[in-house]
Amino acid sequence: MAIETIKWAKGTARIIDQTKLPNKFEYIYCRDVDRMWHAIKRLEVRGAPAIGVAAAFGVLLGIQRFKGQDKAKFLKLFHKACDYLATSRPTAVNLFNMLNAMRGVVARNPQADVVSLKKLLFKEAMAIFKADQDVCRRMGDYGAKLITNGMRCLTVCNAGALATVDYGTALGVFYSAKRQGKRFSVHSCETRPLLQGARLTCWELLRQKIDTTLICDNMAASLMGKGKVDIIFAGADRIASNGDTANKIGTYMLAVLAKHHRVPFYIVAPRSTFDLAIKSGKQIPIEERKSDEVTHFAGIPTAPKGVKVYNPAFDVTPAKLITGIVTEYGIIQPPYVKNIAVSLRGAEGDAAIY
Amino acid sequence: MAIETIKWAKGTARIIDQTKLPNKFEYIYCRDVDRMWHAIKRLEVRGAPAIGVAAAFGVLLGIQRFKGQDKAKFLKLFHKACDYLATSRPTAVNLFNMLNAMRGVVARNPQADVVSLKKLLFKEAMAIFKADQDVCRRMGDYGAKLITNGMRCLTVCNAGALATVDYGTALGVFYSAKRQGKRFSVHSCETRPLLQGARLTCWELLRQKIDTTLICDNMAASLMGKGKVDIIFAGADRIASNGDTANKIGTYMLAVLAKHHRVPFYIVAPRSTFDLAIKSGKQIPIEERKSDEVTHFAGIPTAPKGVKVYNPAFDVTPAKLITGIVTEYGIIQPPYVKNIAVSLRGAEGDAAIY
Repeated sequence: MAIETIKWAKGTARIIDQTKLPNKFEYIYCRDVDRMWHAIKRLEVRGAPAIGVAAAFGVLLGIQRFKGQDKAKFLKLFHKACDYLATSRPTAVNLFNMLNAMRGVVARNPQADVVSLKKLLFKEAMAIFKADQDVCRRMGDYGAKLITNGMRCLTVCNAGALATVDYGTALGVFYSAKRQGKRFSVHSCETRPLLQGARLTCWELLRQKIDTTLICDNMAASLMGKGKVDIIFAGADRIASNGDTANKIGTYMLAVLAKHHRVPFYIVAPRSTFDLAIKSGKQIPIEERKSDEVTHFAGIPTAPKGVKVYNPAFDVTPAKLITGIVTEYGIIQPPYVKNIAVSLRGAEGDAAIY
Repeated sequence: MAIETIKWAKGTARIIDQTKLPNKFEYIYCRDVDRMWHAIKRLEVRGAPAIGVAAAFGVLLGIQRFKGQDKAKFLKLFHKACDYLATSRPTAVNLFNMLNAMRGVVARNPQADVVSLKKLLFKEAMAIFKADQDVCRRMGDYGAKLITNGMRCLTVCNAGALATVDYGTALGVFYSAKRQGKRFSVHSCETRPLLQGARLTCWELLRQKIDTTLICDNMAASLMGKGKVDIIFAGADRIASNGDTANKIGTYMLAVLAKHHRVPFYIVAPRSTFDLAIKSGKQIPIEERKSDEVTHFAGIPTAPKGVKVYNPAFDVTPAKLITGIVTEYGIIQPPYVKNIAVSLRGAEGDAAIY
């Protein structure tokens, strides 16, 4: 793929500025935790797995310039960075899982001095980074088993290379299927208000020479009604232990439409997107974003001044509408409470939180 | 209301340029049939009832400068204007119904000379124009019976004063309810790609001081899932004799979501939107519009160059998903084949094609 959504290089976290794509391909160089916080907040880096890695890198940015051996001061700085990054976005659990992974390093090494802790934290962040590609490939290969020649697929938002370190979750399925020589086509929902489907997914899929058609979100129903959708793949920002899945706004819409039209609806997400501490989707906090994302485009008003706006960034799809969840350990099918526990709690045995 | 979407004045059809709203309120003065054709095509005037009136006025523009008494030449010019206007947009049947009404004047008056025909056609166009307001008020009053205090309503696209001569179909229901002193709120789907919901419906509803919240189309499912929608009202561009209804893309989406969430889903449309010559929605031609409506905003690309686009302007909602159809003769309920015939074929008895 070689998109390199996020990369650590010489004390800097380099990210692709996703707010500029597809018109401009520009890098942002984050040199301190504050810049990374804003990069996550503004969606310059986005996608649940990618912001997990961004958070881990953000912690490194927060501690790397610490001088001296005062461990209490170091830990204060470390936890401050973690706490701060945790406030950037509320829904994707990868962010919190990766901050917890970083905190785990500190917790597991109470005797380590500042120099050792810095090294261990660096190592942990790099492990998080490196795990992502492998995990994506494994998900892609499992998911690709669901794609047969001639299939007409549908996806929403961007669950691709740009949402991960490199390769993607839902789009990773398409990349694996393409690598295997399968013929299929993809409709991409544009994904209002920020158009990640139009701007990012179409850009990625065209780069990979995948047959891609863009639609507005409100056209998906019509497409399904005409029998032109065989399967749907979406990513996830947080999956509860019962399978309820938070993902980009519009995902729940697709799931309800899929049920009505008897179209299989799959979620593709790694272990790090599961939140086994919560029982159901009701416990997932849903980020509401500013109204101007809906009322303006490129600074131009698209609605009358003063109109109220409801702008949730995510919705929750109940597990009962999900045909299966593709993970790096295989495809989990209902009943989810049991099967998620069996698939992933076992996986935790080998410490595979990421 | 006094919006005056379309008005005839001194040989000119004056229309509000709806592509500029809400940022600019500008009139376009159509002085010939060609300008009116483009106004309809470009959606400067839009909404099924409004383009019916626009078509009738377009015919007047086509014939008004005809000099002399050569009736064959006059009729050639007249039919050329009708045929030309009929190519402007394919889905809304009001356009064709009103052109047929104009043609009916000629057919019913074979002995009339050019001067008389011009007078009769002018009279017909004005009757079409004047009927619209009365018809809208009657629909609004019938529909308002469905609204009770505290109701949270949802609508899509613009089925308001701007879609008619003045008052509206679906929004006319809100205006009647408001006039009756009822308290209620409305969520307006922005309606991609051309944002008629954001630009036009919010503008109209705020003018009438109705509690209005804008959402992206892909948020309607989430809103219904949270139990925050009590009733849905949509307009129509063509209704088949079995009740299948073509309306702005995204309407079918709302109808499927409404069924899943057990939310009543109503269509509001006048007699002139029914096409009793067709048996079902399968016979309704669906306009597909240019890809740049989806891939660009205000000239700025929002998708990578070269991506394919599917951009149907309408979808068809099967009658079985429609709770009722509010017309100027009352609310038609299932079974539609029988009840539409009873309600409207009777109405045709008093020649109420418009």
